[in-house]
Amino acid sequence: MRPRPLPPVLLFGLVPVGAWFIVRPFLDPIPPLPALYTSFGFSVFALLATLYIIPAVGPAFIKANLKGIDLLKTDKTPVPESQGLVAAAVYILLLILFIPFAFSDSIATFANAKKKPEGISVIEFPHYQLSVYLSSLLSLLIATMLGFLDDVFDIRWRHKIPIPIIASIPLLMVYYAERGNTDVVVPIPLRFIFGNLVNLGPLYYVYMSLLSTFATNSFNILAGINGAEVSQALIIALSVILNDLLYLPWPLDFRIPLHLLGYRADVEVGGVYSAGMAYGSRELVERHLFSLYFMLPLVAVCIGFMYHNWYPARAFPGDTLCYVTGMAFAVVGIQAHFSKTLLLFFIPQIFNFLLSCPQLFGLVPCPRHRVPRFDHNTNLLHPSKTLFLKPPSQLTTFVLGTMSTLGLTELTRHPTNGTILEANNLTILNWFLLRLGPMNEKRLVQVLMCSQVAGSLLAFTVRYGLAGLVYDGNRR
Amino acid sequence: MRPRPLPPVLLFGLVPVGAWFIVRPFLDPIPPLPALYTSFGFSVFALLATLYIIPAVGPAFIKANLKGIDLLKTDKTPVPESQGLVAAAVYILLLILFIPFAFSDSIATFANAKKKPEGISVIEFPHYQLSVYLSSLLSLLIATMLGFLDDVFDIRWRHKIPIPIIASIPLLMVYYAERGNTDVVVPIPLRFIFGNLVNLGPLYYVYMSLLSTFATNSFNILAGINGAEVSQALIIALSVILNDLLYLPWPLDFRIPLHLLGYRADVEVGGVYSAGMAYGSRELVERHLFSLYFMLPLVAVCIGFMYHNWYPARAFPGDTLCYVTGMAFAVVGIQAHFSKTLLLFFIPQIFNFLLSCPQLFGLVPCPRHRVPRFDHNTNLLHPSKTLFLKPPSQLTTFVLGTMSTLGLTELTRHPTNGTILEANNLTILNWFLLRLGPMNEKRLVQVLMCSQVAGSLLAFTVRYGLAGLVYDGNRR
Repeated sequence: MRPRPLPPVLLFGLVPVGAWFIVRPFLDPIPPLPALYTSFGFSVFALLATLYIIPAVGPAFIKANLKGIDLLKTDKTPVPESQGLVAAAVYILLLILFIPFAFSDSIATFANAKKKPEGISVIEFPHYQLSVYLSSLLSLLIATMLGFLDDVFDIRWRHKIPIPIIASIPLLMVYYAERGNTDVVVPIPLRFIFGNLVNLGPLYYVYMSLLSTFATNSFNILAGINGAEVSQALIIALSVILNDLLYLPWPLDFRIPLHLLGYRADVEVGGVYSAGMAYGSRELVERHLFSLYFMLPLVAVCIGFMYHNWYPARAFPGDTLCYVTGMAFAVVGIQAHFSKTLLLFFIPQIFNFLLSCPQLFGLVPCPRHRVPRFDHNTNLLHPSKTLFLKPPSQLTTFVLGTMSTLGLTELTRHPTNGTILEANNLTILNWFLLRLGPMNEKRLVQVLMCSQVAGSLLAFTVRYGLAGLVYDGNRR
Repeated sequence: MRPRPLPPVLLFGLVPVGAWFIVRPFLDPIPPLPALYTSFGFSVFALLATLYIIPAVGPAFIKANLKGIDLLKTDKTPVPESQGLVAAAVYILLLILFIPFAFSDSIATFANAKKKPEGISVIEFPHYQLSVYLSSLLSLLIATMLGFLDDVFDIRWRHKIPIPIIASIPLLMVYYAERGNTDVVVPIPLRFIFGNLVNLGPLYYVYMSLLSTFATNSFNILAGINGAEVSQALIIALSVILNDLLYLPWPLDFRIPLHLLGYRADVEVGGVYSAGMAYGSRELVERHLFSLYFMLPLVAVCIGFMYHNWYPARAFPGDTLCYVTGMAFAVVGIQAHFSKTLLLFFIPQIFNFLLSCPQLFGLVPCPRHRVPRFDHNTNLLHPSKTLFLKPPSQLTTFVLGTMSTLGLTELTRHPTNGTILEANNLTILNWFLLRLGPMNEKRLVQVLMCSQVAGSLLAFTVRYGLAGLVYDGNRR
C-alpha cells in the first residue's frame, strides 16, 4: 500500500508561517507572551516534520520487522507499526529546542530592554521552572522509550500496566526535590471535616503516579481501529488548549455567560489585566503557558500522525503513541495543577475503563484482541464476542446480567438452562456498535470522536458551571 | 550457550553493603559528603541489577530478533545483542532515583540541623545544578534511545556519525539558558596574542557537541572483540574517578610528589580545608562531586555488563552501550569543566581514530567489519585485510606507504609493478596483532586494556606533571 500523498503546496505554504511565528518575538513591538509565538511556530514545523517523515521512514520500520497486518481490512499488506515513535521523537526534540526561547536570560534581557506592554506579560519565565520543564521532558522520553520497548519486546498487557509509573519517576523526584506542594483544596461540603486545605503528603505522589498510569493505559485499552488512539489524544489536547486560553491575558475583556445558568460570583473575568480567568494572577498565567508549550506541539504531531493513520491506515501508532500522549497529559495536569479538570476531559476513557473492568480483573475472559469483528462481505464492523469455555461464576453472571439490563453488553445464553455462553467484549467501541448498529470502521472512529467532543463539552460545563457549587475562588 | 553462572553469595553479601551506604547519610555523625555515600550505595545496587537482569532478559532479546553471531568463534549459537540497553536503563534509572538525595532541601535541612563537620562539606548541593543534572540525564537518555534505534534499524555508519550531536542538544540548550560560561583559559605561551581568557562564544557550543560526537564514536570504531567496548569505558571511568578524588576534601593532607619532577608552584594541596587539589574551592569540589555521581554507577554497570560480555561473550553490547558511555563521559567533561583532562584519557581512542582516518574518509576501502581475522584451526586472531579492487590513487599509495614505513600497517604489493593489492585494516586491534603477533581474542582484549591503563598513566603525568608548563593555577 502506498503512503498517502502529500501536497507540496503544504510545505511551501506552511514554512513561512512557522518561520514568522518563530521570528516574531524578536521584532518590535515585543508581544506580551513572546515564547508562545515561538511555540506556535515550532508546532507548525512539528506538523510538517511528522507529515513528511512518517511515510519516508515507513519502509525502514517494515524492514526492522516493526509491522502489522490490519485486522479489520481485506487487504493484508503489512503496515508500518510503532510509527508513533516518529511523532514522539519530533515532539520531544522540538520541546528541547524550545528551551532557550522559554528560559533563556539573554532573550528575556533583549525583550526587557524594549518598552514593556501594559498588563500581564510573561516575558521572563521563572527560572526554577526550568527543572520542572526538564523533568517533564525526561518523563516523556522515558514513556517513549518504554512504549517502543513494549512494541519491540511485545510485553504482556498485564505486565505493562505499571510501566507508566517508571516514566513518572522523574516528575516525582523533581517535585520532591523542589519541595513541591502536596496540599489540596477541599471541596466546600467536606470542609467541616478536613478544613480548607489538606496535606496529602506521600499520598500526593501516589496520586501523581496513578494519574500517569491512568492517562497512559486508558488510551491503550481504547484502541484497535484506525485513528482511535490519535484522535482521542488530539481532542483532549485541543480541550486542554481551550481551557488554557481562558487564563491568558487577552487584549479584550471577556466573560463566560454563566449568568444564563444562574451563577455569577467567581466568573468575573478580565478586569485591569485583561487576564481571562487568571484574575490577574501571574502564577496562573505561567502555569497555563507551561501547559500550552506542551500541548501546541502535541496537537501538531497528532494531526500529522492522524493524516497517515486515518482510515484506511498507512501507519500504525504502536504503544509508543499511547504512552507519550498519555504521559504528556499527565505532565501538564500535574505540573500546571489542573489534574481534576484534566480528568474531566477523559470521560469516554473513564467510561471505557469502567466498562472494561470485568475483563481487566479476570471476571470475564479477555481475549488478546477485543476489537470489533469485521465482516468481509459487507465491510461493516460488528461487536466482537468473548466465549465462556467453562460456565461463568455466580458473580460474573450477576455482573454481566446487570450490564446487559443496562444495555452495556449483549449476552448469548444457553437455550435451556440459561447459562451465559458468550458476551460482547466490554469496550466502548463494541458498545457503540451494539447501540447504533453495525457500521464501517471510518464511521465508528467518527462516532468515537463525537463522543470525545461531547465529553469535553460536558467537562467544560461541569468545570465552569457546576464547580462553583463545591469550590470557591480559592482554586489551585 | 548458557549464561555465565552468578554466585548467590554475591547477592546476599552486597545487598547489606549497598544498603548501609544509602542509610549512612541519615546516621549521626553526618559525613562531610553525604550524597556521595548514597551514590556509592546506589552503585552497588546498579552492579547487582546489571549482573542479574542481563542473563534474565537474554531470551527476550533473542526472541525480539536482537541477536548476533560471534564472528570470532567456532560456535555459531546466536548471542543476545544490544544488551547495553539493560546497563543503560539501570544506570539512568538509578541516576533519576538519586535526585532527591543530591538535591532535596529536606535532606539538606536534616543534615544542617546536626553539628557541621569542619572543613568543606558539600551537604547542600546548589539548586541551579538540578537543571544541569537533569539536562545531563536527558542527553544520556537520548543517547540510549538513539543507540537502541541504531541497533533496531541498523543505520549505516556514515549516517550515524552525527547522531550524538542530537543527544548533546539538551546539554547545549540548558547551558545556553543558564548563561553558561564560554570563556576558556589560554595556555601561557599563547597569552601574548589572546590574553588570559578568550571567549569562544558559539564555538564553545560546537566544541561541546564535537566532544560528545568524538567520545561516542571513538568507542564505536574501537569495537568488535568480546569486552572491547565495555573495558575501555570501565578504565576511562575509573581514571575519571581517580582524578575526581584528588579534588575532594580528605581527612588527611596529601600532595602529589611532583617535586621529584622538578615542579612545585601549583601543587600545594590540602591545607586548612584538606581539600585535595581543590585548594579550598567549594566550586571545584562540587564539580568533581557531580562527576563522581555519574561515574560511580557507570563503573558499576560496566563491571556488571563486562561479567557477561567477557570472552567468550554471553551478551553483546550493541551500539547502545557505546552511545551511553560515550555520552556519559562527554557530560561530565562538559558539566564539570575538565574536558581537556578527559580527552587525555582517550589516548588509545585518539590513536585508533587517527589510524582509521584513511578508511573513514574513503582513501582506503572500508569493509563492513574491520575486526581481526579468526583462524578456526589455531583459535588465534590475525590482522584482517582490506582488498583494493581497483589500483589505489597516488595519494592513497603515498599515505599507506608512509604508514607502512612507520609500522602501522602491512601492505601486499603486486610482485611486478608494486601497486598495493591489500592492506591491513587500519585499527588499533589489527595494529596490536601486527606488532605483537597473532594471539587469541582474550589476550587481545587484555592488551587493549593494558594500553588503556598505560594511556591513563600518561594522562595523569601530562595533566599534573606537564600542564604546569602551559597553565598557571588559574584553571577552569
